[in-house]
Amino acid sequence: MGSGKEKVVMNNGAGCSGIVHGGDIYRNNVTLDFSVNLNPEPAPEEIMTAALRGLELMHNYPDPLQEELRAAIGEMTGAAAEDVVCGCGASELMMATVHAVQPKKALIAAPCYAGYGYALRASGADVTEYALREEKDFALDAGFADCITEDTDIVFIANPNNPNGRLIEPEVLNGIKRKCAETGTVLVIDECFLQLTERYAEQPDTSDGAVHLRAFTKTFAIPGIRMGYMVCGDMELTAEVRKHLPEWNISAIAERIGIAAAKVISGTGYLEKSNAAIARERSYLEKGIRELGIRVYPSDTNYLLLRQENEIGDKLPGSGNGLYDRLLEKGILVRRCANYHGLDESYFRIAVRRHEDNEKLLAALEEILR
Amino acid sequence: MGSGKEKVVMNNGAGCSGIVHGGDIYRNNVTLDFSVNLNPEPAPEEIMTAALRGLELMHNYPDPLQEELRAAIGEMTGAAAEDVVCGCGASELMMATVHAVQPKKALIAAPCYAGYGYALRASGADVTEYALREEKDFALDAGFADCITEDTDIVFIANPNNPNGRLIEPEVLNGIKRKCAETGTVLVIDECFLQLTERYAEQPDTSDGAVHLRAFTKTFAIPGIRMGYMVCGDMELTAEVRKHLPEWNISAIAERIGIAAAKVISGTGYLEKSNAAIARERSYLEKGIRELGIRVYPSDTNYLLLRQENEIGDKLPGSGNGLYDRLLEKGILVRRCANYHGLDESYFRIAVRRHEDNEKLLAALEEILR
Repeated sequence: MGSGKEKVVMNNGAGCSGIVHGGDIYRNNVTLDFSVNLNPEPAPEEIMTAALRGLELMHNYPDPLQEELRAAIGEMTGAAAEDVVCGCGASELMMATVHAVQPKKALIAAPCYAGYGYALRASGADVTEYALREEKDFALDAGFADCITEDTDIVFIANPNNPNGRLIEPEVLNGIKRKCAETGTVLVIDECFLQLTERYAEQPDTSDGAVHLRAFTKTFAIPGIRMGYMVCGDMELTAEVRKHLPEWNISAIAERIGIAAAKVISGTGYLEKSNAAIARERSYLEKGIRELGIRVYPSDTNYLLLRQENEIGDKLPGSGNGLYDRLLEKGILVRRCANYHGLDESYFRIAVRRHEDNEKLLAALEEILR
Repeated sequence: MGSGKEKVVMNNGAGCSGIVHGGDIYRNNVTLDFSVNLNPEPAPEEIMTAALRGLELMHNYPDPLQEELRAAIGEMTGAAAEDVVCGCGASELMMATVHAVQPKKALIAAPCYAGYGYALRASGADVTEYALREEKDFALDAGFADCITEDTDIVFIANPNNPNGRLIEPEVLNGIKRKCAETGTVLVIDECFLQLTERYAEQPDTSDGAVHLRAFTKTFAIPGIRMGYMVCGDMELTAEVRKHLPEWNISAIAERIGIAAAKVISGTGYLEKSNAAIARERSYLEKGIRELGIRVYPSDTNYLLLRQENEIGDKLPGSGNGLYDRLLEKGILVRRCANYHGLDESYFRIAVRRHEDNEKLLAALEEILR
């Protein structure tokens, strides 16, 4: 493996945009993938049953109006079905929102999820990045709202943020909502991990007019299915977003899974149980990693931002390779964060996985560092 | 059922765009759906095997570079993998092409598939419709190319056209390609049904710089999966289209099916066998329907445009209801064509289905009309 950025932001001959995310199990030899953040709890049986039912329906067009699906999501979130728009993953809804808004100026935080920049580039928007401060553990603070002006067409924030996993303090979030309302700025709140935090029961607030992005991807660990949704009380905006989505954007399989997943969340203790397990394992990892001298930033969800402060230029002192490569030699993939604006090659992100996997990660780190 | 356009172009409370396509089995009581055009041959076993393999992979992100999938499609079409872009159905690629081109002026034929207008509306393009002539059986003629000017940013044509199923004569098609090249106009050729015509072995021509849109939807009768692709030799254009597609737009299931489907097409006689069956059944339907006094327009593919010339204002003479409603009373859904620009309520489109279904349609029509 080569080192550093040119490998992370790679570009294949096809002119595809480079892979800027974790999870590249396709071009690495991986036995344990800590680079993607998925619920470590197995998806309940209802999900596979629904998937198989979806396969039986593959010879029909899915419902382009997605009536049953939007009704189920409406019931789960307490929103009206007409405030729900479904997407082929939340990433499709990010792109459709950008296409709908056609922003000239956008504001995001740094570091943040690379998907916002990816979507914003499609519209050629001028993107301002608000630098989150390391000494504040990269928490979003009140200064962010001050950067929203009449000129700001769109703002993307994540609750919790990625890669550090911090929830936004309610007063900071309310300040951003207020400022967006004052300046007529479209506010997109990425809540794809919110159901994997202690605020899992929090419903999207349709009265704020914001685009609340969610997905079943992380919650049920099914990124291969592509099933995301947004909830938004601004009917003009949702109509405009729909206009920019292709017809039949949800497969029959995603549709059946979405309906089943919404019912699981509404009716069972799945999120409660998942979050208890995540909190327990997160503490276990935090403690073990800190003991190895690696900095761990506080997180409210199923991933942790780490910093190997000894690591200089992607290399461990006295070693040919850095932490990323040394772990990959052992078949463990972590997310290196050098391509996050505001971070560098000393930062890594790991998912909170099941206990036996987390034990293996700690053992591997110990072997490398001790 | 009410009559006429307001029912076809319906709008639900959610502000969704109305259903302008066939296949609305979700809000009708249908036992035989002749309104969607799918290969009547059953999909080969390889497709279901691949789908199940895709389900096993649902806990992973699909490959965002789609390397294996694009390589398989490249091999099938004779194109380079980098000339292939995959979409969540061909409809996603129509939309992404419009987002990439941002056309101010577009040219399409009338009647044609409603999806072009749907995609073009997203960019607010000024759409000119070239009227196909009934006395020429709605065949695309040389006059179309004359309407392409320096101002025309994009042209959508279909080979074969929908709803009449006619292939474009090679000299007409070449004339359009030449004119687009001269005027710097992006040419999109919808070839989603080409593999269900006698020209099934024809490969997309990458030297023409056109966007050749194809899908596995019709060929394998799997519209629930959402797996389309485009082949285009214009690398700048494909890069721009990719920029407007969300990341991971192909589900793990669609990916595995696409790879398997490309191999089936490359290596077996599936298309040949399908097309022999379609030609046979198309003739059977044509003959039977003509004998009932219904006009049938010539078609090269798996659907037929019909005209019930006696029918006035969606009603059969001396009857409260028209052909569409009378068939629906018997559980048979056909595609009424009143919402195709250039057609009216006397036109219907039917799919060519399997023999036993086609027999049932003829029997139902005979009962209604005799």
